[in-house]
Parts: sequence; structure tokens; C-alpha cells
Amino acid sequence: MNNFTNKLYILTEHDDTYTQLILNQDLPDLEITQNPESAQIVLASPPLIAERLGEFKELDWVQSTYAGINKLTQPDLRQDYTLTNVKGIFGPAIAEYVLGYTISHCRHFSHYYQHQQQRNWQPQLYTSLTDKTMVILGTGSIGSHLAKTAAAFGIHTIGVNRTGIPSKQETFKETFHINEIEAALKQADIVVNTLPSTAETYQLLNQTTLGYCSNVLLFNVGRGESIDNKALLLAIKNRWVEHAFLDVFESEPLSREHPFWTLPQVTITPHIAALSEPRQVVEIFAENYKQWRDGFTLNHVIDFDKGY
Amino acid sequence: MNNFTNKLYILTEHDDTYTQLILNQDLPDLEITQNPESAQIVLASPPLIAERLGEFKELDWVQSTYAGINKLTQPDLRQDYTLTNVKGIFGPAIAEYVLGYTISHCRHFSHYYQHQQQRNWQPQLYTSLTDKTMVILGTGSIGSHLAKTAAAFGIHTIGVNRTGIPSKQETFKETFHINEIEAALKQADIVVNTLPSTAETYQLLNQTTLGYCSNVLLFNVGRGESIDNKALLLAIKNRWVEHAFLDVFESEPLSREHPFWTLPQVTITPHIAALSEPRQVVEIFAENYKQWRDGFTLNHVIDFDKGY
Repeated sequence: MNNFTNKLYILTEHDDTYTQLILNQDLPDLEITQNPESAQIVLASPPLIAERLGEFKELDWVQSTYAGINKLTQPDLRQDYTLTNVKGIFGPAIAEYVLGYTISHCRHFSHYYQHQQQRNWQPQLYTSLTDKTMVILGTGSIGSHLAKTAAAFGIHTIGVNRTGIPSKQETFKETFHINEIEAALKQADIVVNTLPSTAETYQLLNQTTLGYCSNVLLFNVGRGESIDNKALLLAIKNRWVEHAFLDVFESEPLSREHPFWTLPQVTITPHIAALSEPRQVVEIFAENYKQWRDGFTLNHVIDFDKGY
Repeated sequence: MNNFTNKLYILTEHDDTYTQLILNQDLPDLEITQNPESAQIVLASPPLIAERLGEFKELDWVQSTYAGINKLTQPDLRQDYTLTNVKGIFGPAIAEYVLGYTISHCRHFSHYYQHQQQRNWQPQLYTSLTDKTMVILGTGSIGSHLAKTAAAFGIHTIGVNRTGIPSKQETFKETFHINEIEAALKQADIVVNTLPSTAETYQLLNQTTLGYCSNVLLFNVGRGESIDNKALLLAIKNRWVEHAFLDVFESEPLSREHPFWTLPQVTITPHIAALSEPRQVVEIFAENYKQWRDGFTLNHVIDFDKGY
């Protein structure tokens, strides 16, 4: 330890795991501190640090352990530090979630589960995923990975983004501009929201846009703020949405009184579509730490104004 | 109608559907008959025609509506006709079944379903499918399609066949000879049987081979005869098999008294992993009919001795 040592404070749901993984990295000139006042760097889960930002007198950089950082981009919070998040590690987990639930629904897994309890042999016809159309809102790393995986099942994928420009990897069959969302949703069998929470995406899925859908499977693996919940209840009633799979909510955990819990057309999961695996987060942190120490630009820097 | 008209008898679980689809094809010189004695051609489901083979005095060709034709390759049945089955249409459905149930298991879908009933927000850690190893017994069109789809999830695939020679499409990461099944199964996280029922595959998964496994997910989407059920019960008890997903059984429907029904480590489905879609079957039949009428070799001809 010397005067040039950099001090890291860890503030996550799994501090012991993160401490051990960071120590294993043996990063140069880095010390883990228990004193918030002296830490220049914080490895943090956004909801935990959002309430304690004032304690960090020397704060220069926060590495979020989540992709979602909207708890830290609220205008009343300080923004005098560099905020980075984790990217590029959630694609496989999101693809498993969306395709697993899509298959489970289309291939009647719950029907067979219930009939097994009654020892009933009860085959049921199905339509395969081949040639279904999936509209993916957001063409970033998560949307792109999902599109590529969905294509392996013969699913036709349409990406929707702010530019209408295809992603570099050309993983989508077609890419639509957000202004063309009506044309995209009218073709959809499956709709997946992967968008972050920003002013532009707030209640993007509302009575108007949900009204463009017909009997779709709707997934929200982005942020709860992107869906108008009242409009979703209407969409289910009107069969615009056949089934909704909701992993994220404006307020989490979802209140026990919420009507979604008991609707047979809604599947609720507790924000697990893609969990940060600490091992992957620490790899991103270690790479960023070396950049930070040498004065270079960090990876995955958040623009507080844009909110992503 | 004239003397040169060829006569087709339809003997399936969905005769009306097949009749309409065949009529729509408007095939030259083909008439659908209600009289078995005059039919040269039968479009048939194997269990239905197996009991009535003697009625067809003019029989020349049976087009099976199933892939599985072992009901017709029993040595006591007549074999004086050409038997063709359907191939190449089941890959997508089997891939959906295997990957859907794999994800459903690894990502705790039933846990979330049960907690939703109680309005519980209860996240659970998981390991993603990435880097898991899937051993696929059989490298034909079904196994190959499954391997290709599994690879989209980052799954490492090993094919096992009678030659050890990689399939033409090179869809498997590795291909093992059946004599090397021990080495293959010892690496497996997921084991999928896609093999037909033959003398060679009879109880291929027995106490010895299941003993090579450790905590695997086991799928049987081939034939019931390939598994020794008593050995499977032992394998579950010893945790060689963590969960078995069984779609096929030696005797179907599975008897209501069978112990599999109530084991929490067994998922039973009523032979639905891949249903023949009549539209696809009729396309294969129409193609074959033109070949047959012109005296050419048919597609998907079964060798009664080999049983496939």
C-alpha cells in the first residue's frame, strides 16, 4: 500500500463473492476499502448506491453490476462521476428466456404437466415456431443475440430501432425505424421489448401500439416503464395479446395486490431473464479498471442525458 | 376414370384431412378408393395398417404417415410391398421439444409458475445453456437439425452413430462411434436418443450405459425400446439421471399404473415431440406418387431387414 493506491468500495447484493473475485484478479494498485469517504471507485448495484451517493466524497467512477442503470440517471441525483454498466453478457440468457417460454407456450408444456398429474395420455396439436414472426424492440447486443438464436428455429425476425439502420452483424431479417412500429407490430406473432428505460421508451407499448397486435406473445425483458399496464390489461381482454411474459416492472418486487399475478394470460418472473453472473461482471470491471488507471476511456460509459 | 387408374386407400387417424389434401394435389391417374381389395397404394399410419395388411390383395406400396415404422417390420408380417416413411420434416419439432424442456428445467419455469400462484417474488440462480455438452444418439436428419439448433445456444454437441463418421452437414462439434459411447456419455450434461427401434438399438440405454452418466437430462424422442425402464429407475435413484423427458414408450399409451407417471424426476409427454403435419406428409406422398407412377425409385424406402 502506498499513496498512489486506488480505493474500491463494493456495494452489491453479493459482496463476498465480488470481493473474492476481485482479489483473484490481483489488479495493480487497487485496494478494497470499507470506508465510502475514501473510495474513488465503486462497484455497485444501482438501487443500493442510488440511496448512498452522498457518502462518496472522492467518487470518480461507478461500475454498475447491472445493465439497467435508470435508478442512477434520475435528474435529482449527482452526475459528477463516470458511470459504466455491463453489456454484452446478457444475450444468451435473454434468448433462453424468450425462446424457452415461447416453446413452452406453443408446445403446451403446462397442458402436459397437468395431464401427467392425472395420468392422462392426451396429445394436442401444435404449430411449430417455423415461419413465425418475432418483432424485437431494440437492436443492441441483447436484441441481436436473440434474433440470431430465434433464426435457428426458422423464426423471421424484425428489429425496431431509432434509426431503421440494420445492426452491423445483420442478424435481423428486416430492420424498421421506430416510426414504422405499426407496420412491424401488425406482422408480429411474438413481440419482445429489450429497450432501456428512457424518456423516449416510456410507455412505448400503450393502447395505440398494443392495438396494432393480434394474438401475440408479448415479452418484456427491458424495463417495466416501457409498458402501460392498464393498456396491457385491455390488450389481453381484446386478445391483442394472447399471453404476456413479464420479467420487469416499474416497481419491484411487484406488489402482491397487482392484478397480473392471477391472470392466466400473464406469466410473471422476478427479474431473472438475465442475471449478472459475478464472474462476467468482474471481467468487465477488471478491463475497465486498467483503462481507468491509465487514463483511457472506459467501456460501456453511460450518457446521463440519454439514459443509456 | 379408366382402366389405368391407380387406386389409393387412406388409413390414418385423420382420413378426412388427408383425403382433402390429396384431392387438392390433383394427382394424375389417381383415385381414392374405399375398397381395400383394389388398392395398390395405401397412405397409412403403421399401427392401423399393421392389423389389416391381409385385406390388401393388390398391395404394391405403403406410404407411412409416421417416421416410426417398426409396427410394420415385425418378422411375422408380410413384406411383399414397398414401404416408405416420412423423413426430414421432424427436425424443427424435435429441436423445439428438446431445447424447450431443457430451458424450462435449467431456468426453473415450474418454480416460477408455482411461486406466481402464491404471489411470491422469488428469484433463483441458474446456469445458462452456454458450454453445456449435449450427446445426441443418432446423426440423421433429426439429430443433425437438433445439433444445429443447440449450437445457437452455445451448446457443445457430440453425435453418436454406427460409423463414427461425421454427418455430411458437419453439424456436430464431434462424432463418436457407437463403441465409444462410454467416452461420449461421460462428458454429457444432456443426452438425447433419436434412434429408430432396431435389434441394435434395443435397450441401448441400460444399467451399464446409464451408469456412464452423471446428473444428465435424458431425452427419449426415438423409440421406447431403446431404454431399459428398470435401469432408468435405478439411474434416477443414483442421480445418473437428474431428469428424464420421455415422449415414447414400448407400449402406448403408457399404462396408468406405470411408476413413471408420479416420479417428480420424470416428464411424460404423449408421443408429441414431433407430430406429422398432414400438409408435409402429403407433399412427400405426392412426390413419391409421381416417381412410382413413372417406375422410378421412391424416396425414403424402408429396408425391412435393417428396420429403417
